[in-house]
Amino acid sequence: MAQKPSIPKGTRDFSPVEVSKRNYIMSIMRSHFEKFGYQPIETPTFENSETLMGKYGEEGDRLIFKILNSGDYLENYISVLEVHIKKIFSELMIELSNKLNDNYRESDNENSFRRNRLFVKLFDSDFIDRIVEQLNVRFFKENKLANFYSKELFDIIQKEIDLMKKSKFLKEKILFKALLNCSDCDPNSNKSVNNFVSKKTTEVIGKWFLNINVKYLTPQISEKALRYDLTVPFARYVVQHQNEIEFPFKRYQIQPVWRADRPQKGRFREFYQCDADVVGSTSLWQEVELVQLYDSVFATLGLNGVTIKINNRKILSGIAEVIGASDKLIDFTVALDKLDKIGEEGVKKEMLEKGIAENALEKVQPLFHFSGSIQEKLEKLSTLLSSSEEGMKGIEELRFICESVMNLGLQQANLDLDVTLARGLNYYTGAIFEVSAPEGVAMGSIGGGGRYDDLTGIFDPKSKLSGVGISFGLDRIYLVLEELNLFPETVSVSTEVLFFNLGESQALEAMKAITVLRKNGVKAEMYPDAAKEDKQFKHAQRRNIPFIVKGINGDLFIVKNLVSGEQMEMSLTDFTAKLK
Amino acid sequence: MAQKPSIPKGTRDFSPVEVSKRNYIMSIMRSHFEKFGYQPIETPTFENSETLMGKYGEEGDRLIFKILNSGDYLENYISVLEVHIKKIFSELMIELSNKLNDNYRESDNENSFRRNRLFVKLFDSDFIDRIVEQLNVRFFKENKLANFYSKELFDIIQKEIDLMKKSKFLKEKILFKALLNCSDCDPNSNKSVNNFVSKKTTEVIGKWFLNINVKYLTPQISEKALRYDLTVPFARYVVQHQNEIEFPFKRYQIQPVWRADRPQKGRFREFYQCDADVVGSTSLWQEVELVQLYDSVFATLGLNGVTIKINNRKILSGIAEVIGASDKLIDFTVALDKLDKIGEEGVKKEMLEKGIAENALEKVQPLFHFSGSIQEKLEKLSTLLSSSEEGMKGIEELRFICESVMNLGLQQANLDLDVTLARGLNYYTGAIFEVSAPEGVAMGSIGGGGRYDDLTGIFDPKSKLSGVGISFGLDRIYLVLEELNLFPETVSVSTEVLFFNLGESQALEAMKAITVLRKNGVKAEMYPDAAKEDKQFKHAQRRNIPFIVKGINGDLFIVKNLVSGEQMEMSLTDFTAKLK
Repeated sequence: MAQKPSIPKGTRDFSPVEVSKRNYIMSIMRSHFEKFGYQPIETPTFENSETLMGKYGEEGDRLIFKILNSGDYLENYISVLEVHIKKIFSELMIELSNKLNDNYRESDNENSFRRNRLFVKLFDSDFIDRIVEQLNVRFFKENKLANFYSKELFDIIQKEIDLMKKSKFLKEKILFKALLNCSDCDPNSNKSVNNFVSKKTTEVIGKWFLNINVKYLTPQISEKALRYDLTVPFARYVVQHQNEIEFPFKRYQIQPVWRADRPQKGRFREFYQCDADVVGSTSLWQEVELVQLYDSVFATLGLNGVTIKINNRKILSGIAEVIGASDKLIDFTVALDKLDKIGEEGVKKEMLEKGIAENALEKVQPLFHFSGSIQEKLEKLSTLLSSSEEGMKGIEELRFICESVMNLGLQQANLDLDVTLARGLNYYTGAIFEVSAPEGVAMGSIGGGGRYDDLTGIFDPKSKLSGVGISFGLDRIYLVLEELNLFPETVSVSTEVLFFNLGESQALEAMKAITVLRKNGVKAEMYPDAAKEDKQFKHAQRRNIPFIVKGINGDLFIVKNLVSGEQMEMSLTDFTAKLK
Repeated sequence: MAQKPSIPKGTRDFSPVEVSKRNYIMSIMRSHFEKFGYQPIETPTFENSETLMGKYGEEGDRLIFKILNSGDYLENYISVLEVHIKKIFSELMIELSNKLNDNYRESDNENSFRRNRLFVKLFDSDFIDRIVEQLNVRFFKENKLANFYSKELFDIIQKEIDLMKKSKFLKEKILFKALLNCSDCDPNSNKSVNNFVSKKTTEVIGKWFLNINVKYLTPQISEKALRYDLTVPFARYVVQHQNEIEFPFKRYQIQPVWRADRPQKGRFREFYQCDADVVGSTSLWQEVELVQLYDSVFATLGLNGVTIKINNRKILSGIAEVIGASDKLIDFTVALDKLDKIGEEGVKKEMLEKGIAENALEKVQPLFHFSGSIQEKLEKLSTLLSSSEEGMKGIEELRFICESVMNLGLQQANLDLDVTLARGLNYYTGAIFEVSAPEGVAMGSIGGGGRYDDLTGIFDPKSKLSGVGISFGLDRIYLVLEELNLFPETVSVSTEVLFFNLGESQALEAMKAITVLRKNGVKAEMYPDAAKEDKQFKHAQRRNIPFIVKGINGDLFIVKNLVSGEQMEMSLTDFTAKLK
C-alpha cells in the first residue's frame, strides 16, 4: 500500500494541542455537571439496530451508520440458502423422474418428440416460480437439511441425461443443461444427485431469491448501528436499568455520536455530544438549574455574554391556537425569526405567502414589536394568549423559571425569552433552550435543550418518565474559544523541561534527575539519542519546551530558559522547586 | 416496541460508579503519560477499510467490524444495474426484431412453427449467458444510459406479443412471458419498450449479476471499519501527518477499540486501549523509561508488587538458532512456559512431541533451571547463545535496559527476565514487555508491549520509523483494583449534600445556598419536588449522599450527617468551610 493514507470524510484526527484543548473544555463541563449533582454514565458505541431505528424519523434512519454483521455475513446466508435449494431441487427431481417413468410406461417406443415436450414443460417458468415460492417458504420455516438423495434417483436422472445428450432437440438440451448444469458433473465419479445441482445453479437461484428479499437484506446483514445521539441510548439505559436507578436520576454523558450527514464546514460525521438530563421529575427547579448550569460552565470557560434563550412549547401551542393554524406554526416562527433582517413588512409578506390568514396576523400584532424585559414580554404574551389555556400555562412556567433564575442571579449569561425558538418542536413539550455565542461571534447556537414529557415511553409504554436536559456543542464552543483567544496558555504546554542527552554517563545522571522531577509532578524528559547539541536544541524549540538542561556540572545543572534566553546553574532541589 | 431493550453482546453500559472508577484509572495514566513527555492524540472511530484490512492477519480481518455504506447502499447499486440491464435488453430486442423481420420476409405465410422455433432460440441459455456477460462488461466499463427505445421497435415487439398470445405453443409463450414479463405491460398506456423490461425481470437478472459479483459485494457496500487497535491508526497518523510532527514523537492514546470476537467472561467487543509509544528513535532509553512508566502508574494506583517481565526478540532468535529450528520457536517457548506446572520432564516430553530434536534440548539445558537474578540469567544466556551474533546483541540490549532501570530504581514493581515471553512474536523486533498482577491475584497480563523496528512501513515504504510502546489493560486493572479494594472511597462519592425541598419559599432559599456552595466547589443539590420528608430522606440514603439539609432556621441550616447520625444547625459560611 503506497498511496498516502487518509481518514474517512467527515472525521478528524486530533493533534496533541487539539486533544488538550478539547479535554480542557470537557473537564470544566464535567466538574460543573458533578457539582450540580449529575452523574456520568457511558453507553456502548453501537446499539442494537431496533433500539435506534424509527426514533429519529425517516431521515434519521437514513443517517444512522449501520454495522455489517461480523464474519462472512453473506456467505453464511448463501450457504444456508444453498442447502435449501439443493433439497428442493432434489424433491422436484423425484417428481420429474416419476413423470418420466409414467411417460416411459405410456409408450415404450421411441416417441422422443412427446417425451421431450413433457420433460421441458417441467422446466417452464411455472417450475421456476414454484422453486422460488418453496424457497421462500422453506427458508423461513425450517432450517434442517433433509437427505433425499438416493442411488435410484441418481440412475433415473442419469439415464435421462444420456438420452438428452443424443436428442436432436437442441433447445431442450440447452434448457436442461442450463438448469441442472450437468456439463460439470461426471456421473462416474460423483455418486450423488447433490452434484447435479451445481454451485452455479444454486448461486443463480440463490441470488434470484436474495433479490426477492432485497428489502429484508439489511436487517439480515446488519443488526447493530452506531449511536446517533445520547438521548435515545439514555432512554434505553433508564428503561433497561430502571430497577437499579434511584429516581429522579440526574445523569451526564460525554461521548461521540455518528451521523452519515453530508460533511460540511464545521459539520462532522463523528462529533461529541455533552448532555446533562434529569429523568423522573416534573419540577421546574430542574429548568432553573439547567440555566444556572449553562451560566456556570460558560463563566468558567471565560466566555462572557452568552445569551440563553428560553421558550415554552405551550406558548407556541397558544400562538398556534390564536393564529388558528397549528400546521403553520413552524412557518410562522421561521418567518418571525427574520424580523431583524427583513422587517415587519417582510415577515408579514412571508407569512401571508405561507398561507397564514391576514386576520391572524392582526391578532398577534404584539409579536412584531416584542421587545423589553422578560417581565414585559410575559405581560404582552398574557394579553395575547389569554384565550388559550395551554398558552397561559406556558407563560406561568416561564415566569417561574425566569423569576427564580433572576432571584438566584447569573454570573455572566443573559437570559432572554424568544418566542421564535422552536427547535425540536416535535418532541419538546415544555421548556425549550438555546444558547448563542456572545455578540460579535458569528456562530450558530452553542447549546440547546428542553423538556420532553415522555422520554422512556418508546421503550416501555408503562414507564412514561418526564425528562429535561441540555446539550453543549463542543466543536462550536471550541471554535468560539479559539476565536476569542480564551484558551489558557497552560492548556497546551506539554513537556516543561528537556534534558540534553550528552552521552552514556551523563545520560544516566540526567535520567536520575528526571525521575526526581517527575515524582514531583514536573513534566520532564531527556532527548533519547546523544545527537548533536544543535539538533536537540531545535527539538526543544519546535516543541515549545520552555526549559532545557544543557549539561551537568557536578551537582549543578546548566539550565536555559528558552523564552527569556536566561541561563543559570542550579541544584536539582532548586530546579524542582522552580518548576513544581 | 414493547420488548425490554438490551445492548449488543460483548458491549457494556457503565453506571456512574463504574465511569468514576474507570476515569480514576485513566486520569492517573494520563497524568503519568504527560509527566513522561507523551502527548495525547485521538483518531477517528472508523478508518477507511483499506487502512485496517490486511494489517492483522486473516483472523484479524475477520474480526474487524465493518460499517455499511450510508444511504440506500444496495438500492443505488441495483438501480445503476437496472439501467444497464434495460439498455442491454433493448439492444438485444433490436437484434431480435431484425431477425423476426428477416423471418417474415422469408415466408409470408403463417409458418408459425418455424417462426416460433427461431424466436425461442433467441431466449435459450446462451442468450442469458450473453446478457450476463454483457452486464459484467458494461457495468464496470461504462456508466451512461443510452436511449435505444423507439416507436418502431415497440410496434414490432407488440405485434410479436399479440401473435404469441394466440400461439398454441404454450412453452414458448411462457418463456417469452417469463423473460419479458409482459403480463404487467399495457401497450396502450406504456409507450416505451422500456416498460417491457419490467422491474421484476431486471431484479432477477440484477441479482444473478450480483451473485457473480458476490465477492466484490463487501468492498462495494462497506468502505469503513471500526478501529481494531491503536497501533495501526497511530502508524497511519504518523505517516499522514509526518510533515507536522517533530520526531522523536512520544504519543499516548486512550480510546476504545472494537473486535468481533466471541464474547467471553472478561473479554468484550468494545474495550479501551491505553497506549504510550515513541516513534522515530532507536534509543534504548525509551525502553528504560517505559519500564519506569509502568512502575509509576501502578505505584500511584496503589497496586504494589506487579512484575514487569522483559525479553528480547533477538534472544528468542538466538535460542531458535541454537535449537536449530526457528519454525519450532513458538512451540518451544509455549512448552518452556509450563515448567512450573508440569516440571522439566513434562516440558521436555512436550518439546520432543512437537518435533524438537533431543540434542537441541541438551544444548539449551540451562533454560530448564533458569532462575536467579537478572544478572545471573544474563550470564547463563551469554554462555548459551555465545555462538549467535543476534542472540548476543539481544543480551546486550537487555543488559543495558535492566541495569539502567536498576540504577534509577523502581517504586514498587519487580523486573524480571522471562525468556518464555514471546507475545507479538511476529511484529516485535527488540524488547518485549508484559506486566502481571501482584502474586495471589488470578489475572492474566495487565499490560504489554515491545519494539517494532518498522512501524510506518505499511503506509509508506520510505518511512521506516522504529517504534516502541506499551499498553495498559484497563478492564483487567479495574478488576484487580476492585479485587484488592484499592479504589479510594472518594472516587465514587458523588453529591455531598442534599437540601430537602420544603415548599416554594424555602426552596428558593435552599437554591440560593446551593448556588453559593457550588461556587465553592461543593457538589450540592436540592430534591426537586416538595415530596414527603421520608421520601427525600430515602433518596439521600439510596444515593449515599453524606449530608442532608432538613430545614432552614433563619440564617441557620439544619444539617444532618447521615453517616454519623449527628445533627446540627450551622451558618452557610460554616457549612461551606466544612465541606470545601
